[in-house]
Amino acid sequence: MRHGYFGPRGTFTQMALARWLGDDDALAAATAYATVPAALEGVRAGEVDAVMVPIENSVEGGVSATLDALNSADPLAIQGEVLVPITFVLAAPGGVELASVRTVGTHSHAWSQVRGWMARELPEAAYVPTLSTAAAAEGLAEGGATYDVAVCAPLAAEVFGLDVLADDIGDNRSAVTRFVLVGRPGQVPEPTGADKTTLVLYQHEDHPGGLLELLEQFAARGINLSRLESRPTGAAMGSYCFSVDVDGHLAEERVGEALVGLRRVCADVRFLGSYPRADARRAQVPATADDAAYADARAWLRSLRT
Amino acid sequence: MRHGYFGPRGTFTQMALARWLGDDDALAAATAYATVPAALEGVRAGEVDAVMVPIENSVEGGVSATLDALNSADPLAIQGEVLVPITFVLAAPGGVELASVRTVGTHSHAWSQVRGWMARELPEAAYVPTLSTAAAAEGLAEGGATYDVAVCAPLAAEVFGLDVLADDIGDNRSAVTRFVLVGRPGQVPEPTGADKTTLVLYQHEDHPGGLLELLEQFAARGINLSRLESRPTGAAMGSYCFSVDVDGHLAEERVGEALVGLRRVCADVRFLGSYPRADARRAQVPATADDAAYADARAWLRSLRT
Amino acid sequence: MRHGYFGPRGTFTQMALARWLGDDDALAAATAYATVPAALEGVRAGEVDAVMVPIENSVEGGVSATLDALNSADPLAIQGEVLVPITFVLAAPGGVELASVRTVGTHSHAWSQVRGWMARELPEAAYVPTLSTAAAAEGLAEGGATYDVAVCAPLAAEVFGLDVLADDIGDNRSAVTRFVLVGRPGQVPEPTGADKTTLVLYQHEDHPGGLLELLEQFAARGINLSRLESRPTGAAMGSYCFSVDVDGHLAEERVGEALVGLRRVCADVRFLGSYPRADARRAQVPATADDAAYADARAWLRSLRT
Amino acid sequence: MRHGYFGPRGTFTQMALARWLGDDDALAAATAYATVPAALEGVRAGEVDAVMVPIENSVEGGVSATLDALNSADPLAIQGEVLVPITFVLAAPGGVELASVRTVGTHSHAWSQVRGWMARELPEAAYVPTLSTAAAAEGLAEGGATYDVAVCAPLAAEVFGLDVLADDIGDNRSAVTRFVLVGRPGQVPEPTGADKTTLVLYQHEDHPGGLLELLEQFAARGINLSRLESRPTGAAMGSYCFSVDVDGHLAEERVGEALVGLRRVCADVRFLGSYPRADARRAQVPATADDAAYADARAWLRSLRT
Repeated sequence: MRHGYFGPRGTFTQMALARWLGDDDALAAATAYATVPAALEGVRAGEVDAVMVPIENSVEGGVSATLDALNSADPLAIQGEVLVPITFVLAAPGGVELASVRTVGTHSHAWSQVRGWMARELPEAAYVPTLSTAAAAEGLAEGGATYDVAVCAPLAAEVFGLDVLADDIGDNRSAVTRFVLVGRPGQVPEPTGADKTTLVLYQHEDHPGGLLELLEQFAARGINLSRLESRPTGAAMGSYCFSVDVDGHLAEERVGEALVGLRRVCADVRFLGSYPRADARRAQVPATADDAAYADARAWLRSLRT
Repeated sequence: MRHGYFGPRGTFTQMALARWLGDDDALAAATAYATVPAALEGVRAGEVDAVMVPIENSVEGGVSATLDALNSADPLAIQGEVLVPITFVLAAPGGVELASVRTVGTHSHAWSQVRGWMARELPEAAYVPTLSTAAAAEGLAEGGATYDVAVCAPLAAEVFGLDVLADDIGDNRSAVTRFVLVGRPGQVPEPTGADKTTLVLYQHEDHPGGLLELLEQFAARGINLSRLESRPTGAAMGSYCFSVDVDGHLAEERVGEALVGLRRVCADVRFLGSYPRADARRAQVPATADDAAYADARAWLRSLRT
Repeated sequence: MRHGYFGPRGTFTQMALARWLGDDDALAAATAYATVPAALEGVRAGEVDAVMVPIENSVEGGVSATLDALNSADPLAIQGEVLVPITFVLAAPGGVELASVRTVGTHSHAWSQVRGWMARELPEAAYVPTLSTAAAAEGLAEGGATYDVAVCAPLAAEVFGLDVLADDIGDNRSAVTRFVLVGRPGQVPEPTGADKTTLVLYQHEDHPGGLLELLEQFAARGINLSRLESRPTGAAMGSYCFSVDVDGHLAEERVGEALVGLRRVCADVRFLGSYPRADARRAQVPATADDAAYADARAWLRSLRT
Repeated sequence: MRHGYFGPRGTFTQMALARWLGDDDALAAATAYATVPAALEGVRAGEVDAVMVPIENSVEGGVSATLDALNSADPLAIQGEVLVPITFVLAAPGGVELASVRTVGTHSHAWSQVRGWMARELPEAAYVPTLSTAAAAEGLAEGGATYDVAVCAPLAAEVFGLDVLADDIGDNRSAVTRFVLVGRPGQVPEPTGADKTTLVLYQHEDHPGGLLELLEQFAARGINLSRLESRPTGAAMGSYCFSVDVDGHLAEERVGEALVGLRRVCADVRFLGSYPRADARRAQVPATADDAAYADARAWLRSLRT
């Protein structure tokens, strides 16, 4: 299998792919894409079989670029997920001292996660946005950057040969980012008992109580939601779709039946994959909603109908 | 087919069977049973193929004897329903005058439907309960009755040769009783598009919100309830089951899926039949819940799974 | 206070009043009414201050006569409840032997609770309905009854000087009847922490999901229902109101707010009283729904508004 | 009143403030802040009385920086809203030709709204992130920018004296951004009948069905949600709060009662203001949920309690 990731080298995303592959050669052969949409396009075009992209950060929330790129164009399928603790360093070319820093380059998501540290240690520093945290480091290494230092992953400082002026500068020490490996549809991993299913739900129209109706389709089948995010459909102000993760796998009866219900009551449902949870925590399924309960109930229905 | 009914001759139930059969010979050949449980037992024992029994009155509510007899022992299946407007007369043997009436015999349900008239016209008359309205008339005809007059159907006065002292004495002129024809299971009538399905639902335990959970199984499939009655299970004070009618037929997808859901979340579900509505009013099925919507959604699910 | 009950002497209802009063003189002074509506009318007319009537049996369900009489005419208020275990005996005048019994007199509710015993011991005996179980016993004592033996309470056999041919003949040994003491409105007992509130709810029209909407008014305030029964309104077939008991007292915030919600969404709400539970079981109120939670939330709302 | 906005001059936010003020002198006196958090901090510190900030875009969704800054620190209060259609131009210093463009500077939200045009017209151009669209234009005007052209508002091109190389280059011609004027609490505008209320809801814990429970607090009071967005609380992966807009005003009964309910069942509720809708569309309030319905129901409750 050929892999790709939202690059350049030194990003947290590359770290996530490293964890997933557990193999230095495969990582070295992976393709770095400049943007999330480009990475997903690479899968669609068949350049690679799967790409690693960030989808959700415990501090910043959903990664809009990924959520929107997954929602549009041909459907893709999530193959798995990786959780990576997020640690930031302040990196600089050799010779730069903290006292002389006037400008700081980094990605906007990283910037908002180090604001507390910056307010205390570099209150006068101006912020310069970059395409990614690794791009900020790379810019310093290449020279000609419009900022003095970069906020990036420890790996990026190492990769690009920068000095670390300060370590672990994130405001939230337990920050974590969730990455997903995205491939083409038709490759649904086998159920493990500890699976997640990702869906995008479009309401028929913006009618009062509409979201309540969607959530009841899950509740009626004993299904727990672990994530719900709204994203605009772009059609009009106030027109939203919902990106959700539920505990369970496409192959399970309760998930299948909920999908049938959602498909009926939604304007559209996009299935983005069933895959093992990174934390391997098994789904808590009530006895009234496991596959045995469905098998029994369906057998009873058949007996009534014949 | 051999038919029976909750008799004797002259009851509203016989009138219901007459409407159902539309054939004097078949009616004449039908067996009259002394009680509702005896009538249902006659079906279970194979003495007759189907019996007509009252199930619900627009003034008095559910007929407990019928609801409880349907819930217990081997399941039976409702084949159809008949609505009969209820009109009461005051009937007496020849020679009895209204002014001399001291005691009135009738079934307790009939008595509570003529109380207003009695309070105005015979305020001093004492009530004597009988097994049915027709039994009250029959008792007068046979002699030896412990009451002077009977409250019964016009037909009963005719059948038993009694005089009608007063006509149309019911307090509610639009009173209607619903009768059902009950047979053995395995004889589910074909769907007509205007069908009703009757169920008995037993909760797993008396937990708060339990009924809400059952009703959501219907709501999630776009199914309308036309009747809901609670009946004690007999297990303990406060232990109830629910007798419900829903718009739709066992053969329809939304009803089948709701049954699967109920079977899962209930301690027990008893299917008592799908049959054409007496009023032939077609079910109002949202476009998101008709068979085409289910077929489309199931096809989509299959495509995801393969 | 002057008391009354659904008589005659020897009924389970008199036993319930005896338990409530705990005082032989007061019991002796109590007025026996021939029917439940007559008893309630006695309260409305001011003949007595409160009457004891049966409202619910663990085997037979709600007592229609009581539920309907409470729903109609001027509102009354339940002051308290009593639970009485139901034990039936077969009583006969001196000299009657079991082998010679051909006919059995009793109230129809009692008859359906001894059917199993009758089927085993007196399979050929015919049933003769009476106005109450005590009336059956009284008829035998007075002579001229149209039946040989009576099914009644042990007390009735004693009161009317009958022999007991068989003891404890009920099919369900744990059968219990709930009685309520009904007075005029304006006498709401103080809250005890273990209270019940009885309501009758009328839907605005028979719209799909209507009952679900009513139940959500309770759920949104963390209120548990301990009883729900449907009763026809009499307006038309399928037009029902709901008689419900909830855990809590009118004086409690969550009950008050639920009443405000129900009054808004219902065509009518009838408040039939808040009173201590017979079993003194305290209501399980979530911390989010007790009076302190409401007081805190209301104080917060006031602070926002000013 | 002193006003501020998320600057610099030439942003869509300044355009929104211009619409709100309708007065060139007041606009000229307004303070431009470099970031949304800085603008809100300016209000908290009393430097200005109110600031205009973007909150929601019909294509990009919620503006995280604003949502998060409103959720944290001392509460602020939204005073009103403005809707501004979003039109982008490609702006360049005099002499630059489209054919020679290699790099494009703009804010990341703007970049994702012109991707289609870029893919067609400048497929080779690299993206350079800037702090805002106006900052991109300003950079070109000041010289020394690391990009050749800017994507910005027509106003920004005008303000900074740039040439417009291409007009109306947004992929979605009906894109709109919603801006809110934020002040200190205690300044709730009067109800107009066409109002919106903005809240942030924190669940007690991440329990299954928790969101359903929150939504039911609105449904039970007949309240419509016009926006629901999840935002991470930062506490842990999967820990979300919900930012919602509802139709109605703090002074209205149904909104007040829903707030009481939410305050009870939520870990925290943040009230961010009630204010007139920009589109002046009156709330559709069911007759069962308007102030008259509440007044009637409360009067009835009082009559029961006394």
